[in-house]
Parts: sequence; C-alpha cells; structure tokens
Amino acid sequence: MYTKVFLATAFSSTSPKEVAVLKDCLFCIDDKGIIDRIVHPEHDDYDSILNEYVNTHAFYKIDEGSYLLPGFIDLHIHASQWAQAGTALDIPLHDWLSTYTFPSEAKFADLDYAKLVYEDVVSTLLANGTTTALYFATVHKEASVLLADICAKQGQRGLVGKVVMDLAQECPDFYRDADTQTALQDTEEFILEVKKIAETTKQGVYPVVTPRFIPTCTDEVLEGLGALAAKYDTHIQSHCSESDWAHQHVQQRFGKNDAQALNDFGLLQDKSVMAHSNFLSDEDAKLFAETGSAIAHCPVSNAYFANSVIPIAKFARMGVDIGLGSDISGGFSPSLYDNSRQAVMSSRMLEDGVNPDLPTEERGVKDSRITIAEAFHLVTAGGGASLSLPIGRLEEGYAWDVQRIDTTIPTAKLPLFDPDEPLLDIFQKMMYLVRPENIRDVWVQGELVHSRN
Amino acid sequence: MYTKVFLATAFSSTSPKEVAVLKDCLFCIDDKGIIDRIVHPEHDDYDSILNEYVNTHAFYKIDEGSYLLPGFIDLHIHASQWAQAGTALDIPLHDWLSTYTFPSEAKFADLDYAKLVYEDVVSTLLANGTTTALYFATVHKEASVLLADICAKQGQRGLVGKVVMDLAQECPDFYRDADTQTALQDTEEFILEVKKIAETTKQGVYPVVTPRFIPTCTDEVLEGLGALAAKYDTHIQSHCSESDWAHQHVQQRFGKNDAQALNDFGLLQDKSVMAHSNFLSDEDAKLFAETGSAIAHCPVSNAYFANSVIPIAKFARMGVDIGLGSDISGGFSPSLYDNSRQAVMSSRMLEDGVNPDLPTEERGVKDSRITIAEAFHLVTAGGGASLSLPIGRLEEGYAWDVQRIDTTIPTAKLPLFDPDEPLLDIFQKMMYLVRPENIRDVWVQGELVHSRN
Ligand SMILES: [Zn+2]
Ligand SMILES: [Zn+2]
Repeated sequence: MYTKVFLATAFSSTSPKEVAVLKDCLFCIDDKGIIDRIVHPEHDDYDSILNEYVNTHAFYKIDEGSYLLPGFIDLHIHASQWAQAGTALDIPLHDWLSTYTFPSEAKFADLDYAKLVYEDVVSTLLANGTTTALYFATVHKEASVLLADICAKQGQRGLVGKVVMDLAQECPDFYRDADTQTALQDTEEFILEVKKIAETTKQGVYPVVTPRFIPTCTDEVLEGLGALAAKYDTHIQSHCSESDWAHQHVQQRFGKNDAQALNDFGLLQDKSVMAHSNFLSDEDAKLFAETGSAIAHCPVSNAYFANSVIPIAKFARMGVDIGLGSDISGGFSPSLYDNSRQAVMSSRMLEDGVNPDLPTEERGVKDSRITIAEAFHLVTAGGGASLSLPIGRLEEGYAWDVQRIDTTIPTAKLPLFDPDEPLLDIFQKMMYLVRPENIRDVWVQGELVHSRN
Repeated sequence: MYTKVFLATAFSSTSPKEVAVLKDCLFCIDDKGIIDRIVHPEHDDYDSILNEYVNTHAFYKIDEGSYLLPGFIDLHIHASQWAQAGTALDIPLHDWLSTYTFPSEAKFADLDYAKLVYEDVVSTLLANGTTTALYFATVHKEASVLLADICAKQGQRGLVGKVVMDLAQECPDFYRDADTQTALQDTEEFILEVKKIAETTKQGVYPVVTPRFIPTCTDEVLEGLGALAAKYDTHIQSHCSESDWAHQHVQQRFGKNDAQALNDFGLLQDKSVMAHSNFLSDEDAKLFAETGSAIAHCPVSNAYFANSVIPIAKFARMGVDIGLGSDISGGFSPSLYDNSRQAVMSSRMLEDGVNPDLPTEERGVKDSRITIAEAFHLVTAGGGASLSLPIGRLEEGYAWDVQRIDTTIPTAKLPLFDPDEPLLDIFQKMMYLVRPENIRDVWVQGELVHSRN
C-alpha cells in the first residue's frame, strides 16, 4: 500500500513562530512520493502499520541521534554564478554585474562548460539539503534547458528560467538577447522544452518566465513575458527594488516603484517570486499580498549589495509570502542553513540598529527581529507557499522532500552532552550548527537523491 | 638541520589590506616548531635544500589543490558554553546570563562533566582550524586548570582564564567566587598551576587573569587582579562596553566608561584583550592604542547581544590591535571562517546602514567596510599582535601554526572550474566557502594536531 514507511523523529513548521516536534512518528509515503499519512505513537493504527512494514524493504528506521527536517527551498539562485562564488564581493552591484558577472555568464554559450558548472551546483545544493531551487540560468536557451534536464536527472525539484535581457544600452553586446522578438521566441521555446522534460520527471521541473530585472529589459519584452506567463501558467521571477541604484533607476524610467511597474506588465501574480525587494513601500507590499507575489529574501547577498536590511517581520505581518534565497553569487554560500542564520542576525541588526554613536532609541527599527524558528519557517513552509507547491512541510498531502541530519557523526557532532536535552533545543542546535557533513540522506518526492553513507 | 620542510603554496597577511601569495615555497621548520627560513623558488638555495630533504621523512609536499593558511586565532571563547551553543539566542544579554548561562557554567564544578565538554570544544576548534584560543573557563579553579591541561595534551595553544565574579548582588549564590579573598587566592594558585603545565608544553599554555566583566566584580577584586597580572606578567581578558546595558551599568557605577575604569585597575596593558568593545568612545580607543590593549571583535555574537556593529575599520585606523573571537555561545559558531565572513558582512551593514526607510546618505557610517583580506588579517596576524605572540603569520621567526585546506575533496570541493584561476581568487573562495571538511591537517608549533586523512 505504501512505497516507503519511515519511523523517525522530525520537525516541521506549523506557523511562522511554531515548530512541531513529530516524535517517533510513522511517515507513510505513496508511490507518487506524497505523504499519505503521519501516524503518531498514540494512534490506534500505529502498531498495526509498524508490524506490517517493519520487516519489509519499504521500512526505514531513522537511528537515534538522527532527525528529519523538510528539504530546504532556495527561492533565488543564479546557477551560472556558482563558478564565481566567493569572489569579487568588494565592489558595488552595478560594477559587479558589468565587470565580473556578465562576462562570467557569457561563457554559458558553451554547453560543455555549462554542463560542468550546472551538474556541480545542483549536486552541491542537494548536499546542502536544498531539495527545491528556483534558478536563474543565463540568456542562452540551450544551456537553460540543460539546467532543467540536469535537475530532472539528479532528482532535484528545479524551477528554471532562461534569463531575458534585451535592452541594448544597458547590456553588453557580448551578453544579451539579440532583440526583443528573439527574447520572446526563445522564452516560449524554452517553456515548451522544459514542459516536455517535466512529463517524465517524478519530482517536477518547471519553466520560469525570467526578466533579469527592469533596468535590462525593454517595455515590449516585459509585456510579452507577462503574456507568455499567462498563456502557459508559469512561475515568474525577477529582481525587485534590490538596491538604492536599482530602485532609483526604475523610479526615473517609470515614475513608480518596481512593484507597480512589474504589476502593470502582468508580472505580479500568485506564482511570482521577486528577489530582494528591500525597498518595497508599504503600498508595494500590499500589492504583493493582494497578488500573491512572494519575496525571496537573500540575507547574505543583501549584506553586500542591497544597502539595507529588508523588514521581513513587517512584510510577513502584512501577509506577504516570504522565503529564503542564497542568491549565489551575490551571496557566497550555497547553504540555506547559512542564510537562515543570517536572516536571524540581519533582522536583529535591523531591530537594534548598527551605529553605536546613535542613542539606543534612534538606532534601530522596533519589532524587526525574527527567531530561528521563523527562519526555519521561511526556508521550508514559506518557500513552499511562495511557489504555490505542496512542499516544505511534513504534513499529509505534501511531497516527501526530506533531509536526515545526523547529530552524532564523529567529525561534525553537535554539542549535545545532556541525555535529556529537550528536542526543541536540539532543533535550534541543528539550525545553527549543522554542516553539509551532518546531512546524510536527502529525499525528493520520495526518492533518495543524495547520500553520504 | 630542519625538523620539517614543507613544499607548498601558502597565503599570509602582510598588512591589514595585503595578502602575500607564497607560491611553491620551501618552509623550513626547526626543532622548536619555529619557521627558520622561507625559501622562494627563485632563490639560489632552493634546489640544494629541496635535494637535501626531498627523500627524507622530514619532507612534506602539499599536493596540488591544497593550500596552507596560518592557523586561526580565537580571541574570545567561553569553553564551558560550548554545551549550550546555538540555543537560547532569542533573549537579552542580562536574562541570557542569569537564566541560561550561569546555571550551565555552574555544572563545571563536576570535573567529569568539565572533561567531557572541554575535550570536545578543544578538538572541535582544532578541526575548525583554530590553533590558538583565548578561553574563559568558569569560576572553578580545578576545572579551569583541567582546560589548560586538555589544551596542552591536544596540542592547542591555549590561553586560559579562571573566571572571577565576586560581587554577590550581581551573581547568583550558586555560581560565584565565595568572596574576594578566595577569588584572588584561587586566581594566584591557578596562575601557578598553569605555569607548571606550560613548562612541559611545546606550544605553550598561558594563564590569563579574567575578571568576567566589571558588573560582576568588586573594586577590590579588580584591583587585586591588576596586581596579580603585573606580578606574574600574565595576559588579561574581560568584556568591555559590550551592550547598551553593560555600558550604562559601568557609567552609573564609576561615572566613566569601561575602558577608563579597567585602566585605573591596571587591567589595560600590552597583553590585555577585551571582548566586544562596541561602545568605546574615541578617547577609549586611544587609551587602547596607547596601552597596547586589543579588541576581540565577535561579529556573530554581536548580532545577538551587542545592540550595534563595532566600527573596527575606524579603530584599526586609530592603531588599536584587533582580532576575532567566536564568543561561544553568545555566538553560535565555533568556526572563525564563519566569524570572518560575518565581520565583512557586519562592516558593510554598518557602512550602508540597515533601515531602507532612511535616505541613503543618512543610513550608514562612511568608511566602515572591511574586505575579506582584512578579515583574514584580523583572524591571523591581528590575533597574534593582540596576544603579543609570534603567531598568525607565515614569516621567519613565527611558529608553524598552519592549516592545510584541500579545495578538491569530492564532498566539499570549492567551485574552481578555470584551470588558470588566479591564486588570490582561490584565496577568496577559501575564505568564503571552506567547511571543516576542507581542513585536512592542522599543525601547531610544528606538530600535527589534527588530521582527517
Ligand atoms: Zn539575483
Ligand atoms: Zn564573552
């Protein structure tokens, strides 16, 4: 009846501030990789299900000292920029793009090179516990399809966008769409090719309409992309109000904020995810909430390029869907653990302020901090809600996207010295101290896709 | 003639902003574990030294894809708090101390428990590339001596302080020195016992005079500790102007800042290291520079408890010695890589500011950012200068405290796809992306003290 039954202790976010401890539960997975039932030890059926499966190949007992978490969801990552992760972080966004990033992305015209980098970034993300990723590829249609294909083969749930940037005066000649018409035609072909791959991919791969950001796109292409997204019911991603520079650029061109401009082009809807969004006004945030558009909060990257900390606690209170993004390589780390930790730290730095020369009461912005439990919500359930997919929670009807954390391996054991340590303290230690070494097994849609055993 | 000769490519900080690339050099180590010579390939003696050692057991060739860095120096860590790392970070400093930390530290009256935690924290730090650490132990004399002994045995250069906290109204009855006289006598006995251990410890262990911070100490004990430090020429450590609360507490008691008060008690001198120091005035910073006192910058911890970002770029320009501290468990991470990254990010957040609702020009503090090369300086050469020890540089006369970073291991390889990647780009990728897995060998004072091979 079930394809897999796991006996394990797991943690899952039930609301932004609450973490459920699922102690010694049976997780019953169907042949589609969906959680059909979660049976607690006190339930009448527990013993009968346990007895039925315990001696079968479908039964997996997670050892003591290991715990399950939902796979993490990366809402913003430039797959091609993995090749330059950790370098050139000392210059402003605009120079960083033109001097380093565009030449580096241009190399992905070469499919052999693209294969080398893309296979490595997908396996690196899986090894970091990231089971779903919303990727920017590059302008190249073939290489972008290749990325979707690599996600499909490696078993990761990939949402992939061929990047569109057709505004000649803002893009280098060596790296942009040939013209608006080609950009739209390549995007449409890309959508169809990825949908084709999706037909035979258990965990799903998804084409994403991806204007890089307003400054590199013509009005015509933005309008055309909005129409394509509607025609094929795709996800949409872009950058929104990231830095002072980007924010002011859009203001000068349209006399309005990014959010309003994107909405006018049909680019804000339930399956839209906008990276950064630091400079959203309250009106913009309301528009996000009304349209169901989500924010990909990229806390590591924002420390370098966003000139500010986004007030996610406030935007969450306003009802906006929010998840986390690594933003490789504006952010250096492929780990969403690192980004969860930074999300907490950045939120506290927004609340307390940073300048010690200012009086306490003028330094920060009240009610801005989030806890590590809230960061866990963002990186799991929040990411799933942002993508409008049944992922990010260990609940019935959700996909079995799961990472097994071993807290006891000798080379990376967590500081657990008290045999009666409360499970929620162990949860906190995992969120703060887990390294890729601790992530021993990763499943996506019920299939084992990464293992270090 | 030499005990060990390494053929390797290494990186070492030569000034706050400059990193030297020592390509294919011979590092010649004497029997005291000191770098006697560094011979570059173009030097006349290169071939003769190479030929003399290449077929001996003293010769170590570091493979391609591996690089040497100086061991990192942790200027502030509470060894006992390793047991609670990653938990209870959601409450203010004062509550965090009384509700969580003091009860947790009180357990170290039990030497078996102390041994369990201390052996684990020392080996964890070595596995993270930390070759020297300046530790707070607890108030317990025996357990503090035990920590020094464990450092000696594991081969880490440990500077260890028995914590002094004798002010009854600010400390819980279950966790403080019995009285001022006992505090001073225990400290003196502790100094003598650690000096005894040091006699037979190649890499050195050092007793450190350690008033916890002014709020938990009587005037008498502070004065007595200053005298003991002078009598035995020891290092001194404490917390200084960490948070709004601590800063104001000292102001109310003495009508002056921490720095001035510490100086009046003889606690600011060349071998003093003060943790945090976020709220130093310019006058205070001058006093640090004049006395040779150093700042232990704890960027991860500061995001939780310091209500601000310390302007280290400014204090460095004023001539203050600065290094990095993990501040376990105010900071959750035992890794000084994590803290180096956070030092860069926090400095940028101070420069750019955090509140997106403020105009750009009012948001941050100009000239506050540091680069990853500057963070590398802090965590190596800056730490050595802060402790007035010949460590933290790969230069003649310095100790062979070194970590070997393998960038190529399959489970944690760095994103290096270009065979001609510049060495300084590889350096940046190491600083941003290395995990404990990449740290394959660690030497202290010429001895191998950690290996994952
Ligand atoms: Zn981006
Ligand atoms: Zn401390």
